[in-house]
This record gives sequence, C-alpha cells and structure tokens, in this order.
Amino acid sequence: MILAIDVGGTKMAAALVAPDGAVRRTRRLATPQDADAETLWKTLLTLIEPYDGFSGVGVGCGGPMAWPSGEVSPLNIPGWRGFPLGERLAARFPGRPVRVHNDAICLAVAEHWKGHGRGRANMLGMVVSTGVGGGLILGDRLVNGGTGNAGHVGHVIVEPGGPSCGCGGHGCLEAVARGPALVAWAQEQGWTPSRAEGTAGPYREDREATGQMLAADARRGDPVARAALSRAGHALGLAIASATHLCDLDVVTIGGGLAQSGELLFGPLERTLREHARMDFARRLSVVPALLGQEAGLVGAAALLLGGDRYWAV
Amino acid sequence: MILAIDVGGTKMAAALVAPDGAVRRTRRLATPQDADAETLWKTLLTLIEPYDGFSGVGVGCGGPMAWPSGEVSPLNIPGWRGFPLGERLAARFPGRPVRVHNDAICLAVAEHWKGHGRGRANMLGMVVSTGVGGGLILGDRLVNGGTGNAGHVGHVIVEPGGPSCGCGGHGCLEAVARGPALVAWAQEQGWTPSRAEGTAGPYREDREATGQMLAADARRGDPVARAALSRAGHALGLAIASATHLCDLDVVTIGGGLAQSGELLFGPLERTLREHARMDFARRLSVVPALLGQEAGLVGAAALLLGGDRYWAV
Repeated sequence: MILAIDVGGTKMAAALVAPDGAVRRTRRLATPQDADAETLWKTLLTLIEPYDGFSGVGVGCGGPMAWPSGEVSPLNIPGWRGFPLGERLAARFPGRPVRVHNDAICLAVAEHWKGHGRGRANMLGMVVSTGVGGGLILGDRLVNGGTGNAGHVGHVIVEPGGPSCGCGGHGCLEAVARGPALVAWAQEQGWTPSRAEGTAGPYREDREATGQMLAADARRGDPVARAALSRAGHALGLAIASATHLCDLDVVTIGGGLAQSGELLFGPLERTLREHARMDFARRLSVVPALLGQEAGLVGAAALLLGGDRYWAV
Repeated sequence: MILAIDVGGTKMAAALVAPDGAVRRTRRLATPQDADAETLWKTLLTLIEPYDGFSGVGVGCGGPMAWPSGEVSPLNIPGWRGFPLGERLAARFPGRPVRVHNDAICLAVAEHWKGHGRGRANMLGMVVSTGVGGGLILGDRLVNGGTGNAGHVGHVIVEPGGPSCGCGGHGCLEAVARGPALVAWAQEQGWTPSRAEGTAGPYREDREATGQMLAADARRGDPVARAALSRAGHALGLAIASATHLCDLDVVTIGGGLAQSGELLFGPLERTLREHARMDFARRLSVVPALLGQEAGLVGAAALLLGGDRYWAV
C-alpha cells in the first residue's frame, strides 16, 4: 500500500493506493491561500495524519521543482519557493521511500499504468486545463530528461511570432490552447458566457468567464465558442505532429477539462494532425481522451513506486 | 572488430571498426544509379568482399526502413523498395549479428559515442544537408519509438501553413532548412552563385546552385546568402526549442554541410532558441557543431553493436 499525495494550488488530496491501483480512503483539504511555507506544510500533515500501513509515499506536485530531490516551487502556491517537500516527507516517514514528481507527469504515468496508455510502450500523456502539461513515456519507461523536466509539451512552438507565454517565450502551445487564453480570445471576438441551464448560482453579467463556460457554450452551438475550441484543436494537432515525428509515438492521451469537449476539440485536432503527420510511422498514431478522471493524480503518484523502475529511474 | 557499412544514394562505404571506435581499411564505391535491386546488392558484396576477421555487421542506410528487420526503401535509391538488406547480410554472414538502422540515427549515435555527445545522457544529434534528419538519445540510450523512427526532427513543424515538405506535410523544419530549399529561396530573392575562388572547374552561368555555393557566398558577405543561412538558423532554433521542451536535452549536435557555416548559421539559431527556451531547464541546453566528420556514419553503424545495448534495444 502506498500513501499517494496530490498537491495543487486549490486543493491537496491524499489516499492509500493498492498495488493494483485501487484508490482507498481519499481525503481532500483546501490549499490555504496566501499561506506561508510552514502553514502549507502543517495543512499537508493534517491531511495525511490519519493514514498508516503504507510502505512508501508518492507525491505529485505542481512544477517547477528540482527533481529528483522534490524541492518544489509550484507556480500557483507562492508560499512554497524551493520548499524541500521530498526531504520533509522523508524525515516524517523514516525508512520509507518518498518520490516526488511533477503533477502533469503523474497524470501521464497514471494513464500509462491504468488508462488508455496501458500496454503501449510510447505515449505522450497531456493535460489541457489552466495550463498545458504532459509526460512522455518511451520504450515503456518514463522519460525524465536531464533535470526531470521532459514532457513539457505545452511549450512546443505552434505559432512562431505568436502570443506571449507564461514561460517567457512566445508562440507556445500553452499560450494558445490553455483555458484562459481561449476564453480571452473568444471574448475578443465578442463572446460572453451565456445563461447556462444547470449552472450553479444566479446569472451575473460580471461573473468571470471560464473554460468550462466556453466549452458549454460550444456544445450549445455558439459559433465563437466553437471557433475557440477549433483554435485549440488546431494548436494541439500541430504540437502532436511535431512530438510524434520526434518520438515515434503509439498513442497520445488528453485529459483536463477541455478534453471533455469531444468532437468539437478532437475534430479540428485530427484534421490538423492528419494534414501534417503523413509518413506511415506518424499516421499510425492515435489520439484519445484520457480514461482516468479525478483520481488520476493520486494513481500516478502511487505509480512512481508501484510501477517498479518504469516510472522512476534516477 | 565490426564490419561497418554506410549505404547512401551517391556512394557506399565500408570499414572495419575497432572496439575503441578506430576506423580501418575504409573502402568506397559509387552507388550505381538507376540500378535494379540485385545490381545494387552485387555492388555492396563487391565492396565488402575483401573484409574478414569481424564478429558482426553494423549498417547505416537511408530511410525509410522497416526496423529492426532492416528491410530498406531508401528515398534516394529507387532500386531498393522493401529490399531485405538485413536478411541478406545475415544469410551472407551466418552466426554473426547484423544490425541495420537509419543513417541519420547512425550519425547521432556516432556523435554520442565518440563526439560531442560523449558523456551527455540526453542528446539530439542532427544532420542538416539535402534533408534534415536526426537521432534522439535519452537516459543514455537511443530512442527508437514504436517503429524505429524516433528522431525525425526534420519534421518538427516550424512554419504552420508554410512550404510543402517531401513527407507530404508542410511547414516542417526540413521544408525550410534543407540545402535545396535554402538555395531555391535565395534564388527567388535574386541570388546566383558567384564565381568562387577555388571552385573546381570552369565557371558556368548555368551550373546548378548548391548549398555549398550558398554557404561560400554567405562567408564572402553576400546579403541574400546570409539571409538564407539566417532563415535556416531561425527554423533550427524553433525546432530545437520545441525538442528540448519535450525532451529536456543536455546537448544538440549539428552535422552536415551547413553546420560548417559557423556563426552565420549558429548566431541566428542561438538568438531564436534563446528567445523561445526561457525556462531554466531549457536555457541550460548547448547547441554545437558535430565533432565527427566523414567517417561518422561508419562509426555509428559499428556502435550499433559496439555500444552494448545503449544503441540497440529491440
């Protein structure tokens, strides 16, 4: 049994994960906002305090981080800058292995271990959400690269001379296809979120538009919202074509909110991919929505230990 | 001792390569043009007939090919389409291992084994010439991908909506930066090859312009020729930025004729790369000209056997 921990800017989650990947006793706490490093650490200790009977600890955390030490500086947790999360957990659980990796890596690993990447040796697992991240598995093993940062598919360049990116560069896939960028683009084209049936809470003109609202409006047929998803699909298709030419992939999985948009996203994605990936080895690639849902981060964190040396090689 | 063979559209080369990488008794023959499959095979047999005292055979051959079987269909050797080169050699040398891989892969492997990739675990070895090819080494091992085609960096997309590529797609690095594409671009801008000092043969207005002539004119200060190399450097910088974001590379080596152009190519390349690769893990990348010269293909072919399982894992 592995104690799995998933640390994000909004919430922290933990669970016990069995060797077969079954997730038990999941607990969640809100990540304290504007908290200092020790307050955040105490929240994490509160979260994991009830667990026992585990042989190791796997953690997915927002990047960037120093890998493999697990010294983390999550972009959306400002209180942790160079926080020695791996070291602290190792001191808390002496004698038990602790493995910390990027949360996007954990999602890819989960999808490879128990999702649509199962049995496929060469996979890129992507997440399209507030950011665009990923993890790369080649020859049936997680690729870490020189510093544990391989898999940053969100920064494959899809629009040279294009929009500025949070990474400091420009024209990156993430700069075009992340939810907030799509929302901003749609708003520039005149889109405002419609009064959605089933939307929680009263309709307010000034509520903040989100990627979910954009996707919902696209499903209702709003032409600008559809064009925004098409724009994302096109950018994803370009990045995936480049990735498979470089890595000769078997499968790409796409998770995150936007991947729920079905044909509205995957249709344009496939069209662009097929226009650019013409050689036999690239044509064979399949691109599918991720299978695993909310617990994928925990499953992947546990797989860092439960996957043998497939997902952890230092 | 390994018998190394390098099969190209213009010539075939062979040599004995020692375990330390030393190349001995190199022989070369012109590849018969417009020859049928058996004529080509007989030429190869003539080339390798004098060799003995080797324990295995390593071959680099133009792609595409079915890997690992070594059934080859080199684009620039029309007489071989689905030719069972690996099988024929195995039958010719029973009991001795035969390993056939893409010639661009062999160049990358050579550079990793004995060139500027030595001791670097994560490397992309590129060749910029009539085409743009490459090979990818991650975690100190050659990446094959699902069908042995990983490393096709020439088909990373650098100009969406850009020029058509020989692969059937468009906007690929190769479509922009291969020698003939640069020559064509420069000619559209009004460039014609200058009467070069030291050029062999009499000057003829109608001689076919080549990448070498373009590079020579760039060194002499011709502004259009310089702009063409700058165009290549920019495209290379974009593709390398995408590659290192995806694979977290330590080093990229660039071989082939154009890589001899020094600062005229590497200056624009570095500028574009540094504008796009801003995260710490990407900034640490170094891009250097390949160290090995004419014999690199033979060294890499031999390394398929002499490199242990680093360069050959099926």
